[in-house]
Amino acid sequence: MNRTQLLELIRRKKSFLCVGLDPDYNQFPQSLPHTLDGIRQFLSDIIEVTVPHAVAYKLNTAFFEALGPDGWSFFWQITELLPPDVLVIADAKRGDIGSSAAKYAEAFFLRNGKPSRIDALTVFPYMGQDSVSPFLQYEGKWVALLALTSNSGAEDFQLKHLSRGTMLFEEVVLTSQQWGNIDNLMYVVGATRPELLRRVRALAPQHVLLVPGIGHQGGSLAAVAEAALTASGPVLAAVSRSILYASSDNTYKDAAAAAVQNLQEYMKFVLNKTEGTDS
Amino acid sequence: MNRTQLLELIRRKKSFLCVGLDPDYNQFPQSLPHTLDGIRQFLSDIIEVTVPHAVAYKLNTAFFEALGPDGWSFFWQITELLPPDVLVIADAKRGDIGSSAAKYAEAFFLRNGKPSRIDALTVFPYMGQDSVSPFLQYEGKWVALLALTSNSGAEDFQLKHLSRGTMLFEEVVLTSQQWGNIDNLMYVVGATRPELLRRVRALAPQHVLLVPGIGHQGGSLAAVAEAALTASGPVLAAVSRSILYASSDNTYKDAAAAAVQNLQEYMKFVLNKTEGTDS
Repeated sequence: MNRTQLLELIRRKKSFLCVGLDPDYNQFPQSLPHTLDGIRQFLSDIIEVTVPHAVAYKLNTAFFEALGPDGWSFFWQITELLPPDVLVIADAKRGDIGSSAAKYAEAFFLRNGKPSRIDALTVFPYMGQDSVSPFLQYEGKWVALLALTSNSGAEDFQLKHLSRGTMLFEEVVLTSQQWGNIDNLMYVVGATRPELLRRVRALAPQHVLLVPGIGHQGGSLAAVAEAALTASGPVLAAVSRSILYASSDNTYKDAAAAAVQNLQEYMKFVLNKTEGTDS
Repeated sequence: MNRTQLLELIRRKKSFLCVGLDPDYNQFPQSLPHTLDGIRQFLSDIIEVTVPHAVAYKLNTAFFEALGPDGWSFFWQITELLPPDVLVIADAKRGDIGSSAAKYAEAFFLRNGKPSRIDALTVFPYMGQDSVSPFLQYEGKWVALLALTSNSGAEDFQLKHLSRGTMLFEEVVLTSQQWGNIDNLMYVVGATRPELLRRVRALAPQHVLLVPGIGHQGGSLAAVAEAALTASGPVLAAVSRSILYASSDNTYKDAAAAAVQNLQEYMKFVLNKTEGTDS
């Protein structure tokens, strides 16, 4: 899915919601069997009730890898449950030297030699340009580059000041704009530090920002919209646990539907407000 | 495998060689079928001729993920070909917020609820302490934290000076020593910049340093030993392509055996020289 299609989708659904699909037995509805079939049923139900209001889905590969050797084929099965008109993000946080990065790119962006259902892959910036470029060689595919993450550990390095005055995450945003463009590079910026999210938006006025950390992790959708959403600067607000585990019993489907509808109503409001403004 | 066992193994084999198992059809011996069975035969042959002189094996997951959904179970099959007395490193370069990192740790360090054959996992430092700590909770398992990588892109961020004067990779080594200890934390430092490798050894005098980039990538074993190997500061020198693809025809087994023997003879020489010295 290219940038134009994504912007059109956001306009049509009046939503910039990205639903995180992180299946975790520890938080799973009691009423479902704790098996791959149970997870498939759960995620299928979640997709059914969220898809009217979601423009993107983010699958965190950690939760699939933890399912064992079948986790990988199961991951691909879940991508097949998603309709063709949503952006699919593999939140795999990969990155390696060029020859290995090319293999990861193959693993995610191709299936049986053809373009896969994955539109975007999260990638670490730490190893620099030649570790990211191989992912940018696929027509219509995106790198979601980790800039500022939502966790407390972001302070250890990402917020450190460099000698020229910028913080590391700002350096990542500035430097990496030479590697890709607004059609194949988006940034991951956590919702938990809205004042810094605003700085990323200033440095990358037109890039899509994928913003996790809303809800369970403490980020606020209103603060995210205020800091980062502009008429020409799209946001994908990623919400996982507050939707998936809105209820832990057999009302999970209704609870997820209600959570998503609330989010979308607010998104419709801020999108209407933003339209026509450019700052 | 704990630190004492690893040091004993290095002394016994007079080697600090870590063989990288990166199966790549593009560089594969012509004489073998380009199938999983072909790869299994190839890696089994490589292990057979290298194991007398290797103390560790490093499996780069990129090459296994690129094999498709069966790549994961195939990865575990290959670990089962390795004898019990070598260190097994999954070069997967993972890292994520705490709850996801815990899932990755499960995926690599457990199998069917029991400790897996993986002794160490490469992890990105970018997301800070809470993204690394979950991997340090497993008795006898190691984090191999990426400090300074061997590629050109290391210059983009890792070599940037912070305002307090250190470079980012030095800050990673200094800060992360608070998270783990010499028994569960090693550092990945590329062979291609020996003068910086020396700085890491000075900052972490007793930590195991896993050093890739020797051979094909241009790093020299002599320079690595000179910069980083001390009597109390162990090194694991990772060599992949110069062994695996020492020959591209059906002489690959002999060629790999010869390459490994050469490496071990030099390692024996420098280990003898180092013994008894401490700097």
